[in-house]
Amino acid sequence: MTTDKLTGNMLIAQSGGPTAVINQSLVGAVLEAKNHKEIKKIYGSLHGLRGIIEENLCDLGKETRANLELVAQTPSSALGSVRKKPTPEDCVKVFEVLQKHNIRYFFYIGGNDSAETTHIINEEARRHGYVMKCFHICKTIDNDLRENDHTPGFGSAARFVAQAFMGDNLDNRALPGIKINVIMGRHAGFLTAAASLARVYPDDGPHLIYLPERPFSMDKFLADVKAVFTKFKRCVIAVSEGIADEKGVAIAAKFTKEVDSHGNVQLSGTGALGDVLADAIRKAEITSRVRADTFGYLQRSFAGIVSAVDAREARLCGQMAVKFATGGKFASGSTAIKRKPGKKYATYVERTELKNVAKETRHMPDAFINKDANDVTPAFIAYAKPIVGELPKIGRLKAVKVAKA
Amino acid sequence: MTTDKLTGNMLIAQSGGPTAVINQSLVGAVLEAKNHKEIKKIYGSLHGLRGIIEENLCDLGKETRANLELVAQTPSSALGSVRKKPTPEDCVKVFEVLQKHNIRYFFYIGGNDSAETTHIINEEARRHGYVMKCFHICKTIDNDLRENDHTPGFGSAARFVAQAFMGDNLDNRALPGIKINVIMGRHAGFLTAAASLARVYPDDGPHLIYLPERPFSMDKFLADVKAVFTKFKRCVIAVSEGIADEKGVAIAAKFTKEVDSHGNVQLSGTGALGDVLADAIRKAEITSRVRADTFGYLQRSFAGIVSAVDAREARLCGQMAVKFATGGKFASGSTAIKRKPGKKYATYVERTELKNVAKETRHMPDAFINKDANDVTPAFIAYAKPIVGELPKIGRLKAVKVAKA
Repeated sequence: MTTDKLTGNMLIAQSGGPTAVINQSLVGAVLEAKNHKEIKKIYGSLHGLRGIIEENLCDLGKETRANLELVAQTPSSALGSVRKKPTPEDCVKVFEVLQKHNIRYFFYIGGNDSAETTHIINEEARRHGYVMKCFHICKTIDNDLRENDHTPGFGSAARFVAQAFMGDNLDNRALPGIKINVIMGRHAGFLTAAASLARVYPDDGPHLIYLPERPFSMDKFLADVKAVFTKFKRCVIAVSEGIADEKGVAIAAKFTKEVDSHGNVQLSGTGALGDVLADAIRKAEITSRVRADTFGYLQRSFAGIVSAVDAREARLCGQMAVKFATGGKFASGSTAIKRKPGKKYATYVERTELKNVAKETRHMPDAFINKDANDVTPAFIAYAKPIVGELPKIGRLKAVKVAKA
Repeated sequence: MTTDKLTGNMLIAQSGGPTAVINQSLVGAVLEAKNHKEIKKIYGSLHGLRGIIEENLCDLGKETRANLELVAQTPSSALGSVRKKPTPEDCVKVFEVLQKHNIRYFFYIGGNDSAETTHIINEEARRHGYVMKCFHICKTIDNDLRENDHTPGFGSAARFVAQAFMGDNLDNRALPGIKINVIMGRHAGFLTAAASLARVYPDDGPHLIYLPERPFSMDKFLADVKAVFTKFKRCVIAVSEGIADEKGVAIAAKFTKEVDSHGNVQLSGTGALGDVLADAIRKAEITSRVRADTFGYLQRSFAGIVSAVDAREARLCGQMAVKFATGGKFASGSTAIKRKPGKKYATYVERTELKNVAKETRHMPDAFINKDANDVTPAFIAYAKPIVGELPKIGRLKAVKVAKA
């Protein structure tokens, strides 16, 4: 079987949590597909896998280039998204639809769950003897995909987090107290760690950063907060929604009952974790002015906050997936962003096997977390800075003291 | 007594909640003061009234123009802020310090509580026979100062809210469900109402908007949500933190015990209200995917989201306060932004009496709220749009349906 000149239609879909640049990947793939005459129709599935199962498809070949460019700059998933793992029955239905529409190029934009879905579809296609190229296009604000230096969506979400902390640190400096901000990232602390980029002056917050990669102890937390508060008379704290105790039980999970279709406990869309931590600080009587904000969904698809590097790389991942698929060499795979060695920031997109990205997630490397497990290291900041881009300039008064009269 | 050529020093301070443009007012006043030779020293008080009482002052004359310009673009109160109403003992101490430093020009940037404080200080100065010009410079993201068409800080906070809803509406469209966002504004719904500016397409959220100006009924709320969900299979809701029942009891107040120094219940810095509303929707079994985010402190001093109109007007209010004070005509007053009649947006800054701004707040006029008490009117959108400025462009796929095979 040769797939060198595989001719047929293309289907692309988006899955999982939206990001600020996931449409860049969509548009990158669609515009690249137009360059390849072996790709006939360019279809999009509405709401991911569900759109295929329900045969709810749209013809992306009928979009104007101008409209596609406008969509590329628009946050969230323009095709709609879904959180669904295919059952064996789903797979039967998926192939029925794909075959009926002569889909030979399949692209699925998403995180590790979506890579797993793409992998299952690819295996099912083989099993059915149906020749189809299946590519996963990497995406997740959590930055937790294996094989990737970082993932599209992370840079823009990290930028939101950094800008939020810049302002919130100044707010806390103006009206001192203890402030907790809860950030997305169930198992990987990259996004929470990005709060560190907000620091400009040595006494700037976040003063403490708690990541899901280290067990969370309430006693240690309260001791840390007390020490910072004693020193600065204020304290800004970044906490991952996914922090868990020694036994791996998520601190937030104790206060919510919701479970999504992947069996995960709901950690976003509730202020419970922040309120629990704030109450603990109040009870410890460190100070009475304690506040908690949960950044929630704002951080993943805010309109108007995009890292230019992130947007460019997301577009490239879409383009490269189509190039890999039409190149003839590869039947399937996933796009992975790799960083070139050297001081100057430069990346490229490589193909990797679906199984290398699917299922398991990547965590913050030890070199990015400080010994005390309450901050990041300079290595993390050097890693994340170019992905997030130039941040707003922050000024501070010299505030030369006037002698008491 | 003539105050035409009153010579002496100036003191400026910031009070209440920080905003994204409160430093524009500070810098506007300081740079304008440099043009008036009757003003000798230009002092700033650290953390508002507390800085005066503790004689914790800084010499703003020693700041470079470049640094002042950088500070002007930086969110939150560069001098530090305070939430404090002066007691009679405080007033004795304040005058002691003001007299010792020969302060003859006093400027206090803040909301209606700060206008009240300025008024008290002004009255005390008269009573003591101490000649001093006291000006309040208007500021509040709540937009609830009387005499003002709108207030500095509102435009930028409203811009944050609008951009947040633009993204969140798209997020909700990609992964449908019910989403509640809780917005600041204890008694005035202007900031919550600004969520309406996010709408681009007819089916865009926010689909429902609840303001503190109208009594909130849980039954009515659930019926509204059910109606929208039936129509769109999704629902995005903007809720003011200050919503209250028929008897005026804040819905949020039932779930928190914190009280600030003005005797107000704490409504921000907790996710309680959003969680309560989400639980009610779940219990009503409208749908299981219900999420709530509380925008919290992010909306008032986010770094990098500023309305250009807001920044310009905040600067002008600082300048004009100094011009009014040095003009000789007025002993005291407050700056008020007025809008010129006509289709083209244009404003000017007027002096008004302190007592006209102090104490009482302004609410959303009836003409801005729909009959059903769950949305704004086109009149509000026409009012708010120019203050917030041009928003990010939002694209949507044509999504031409593919016929089922």
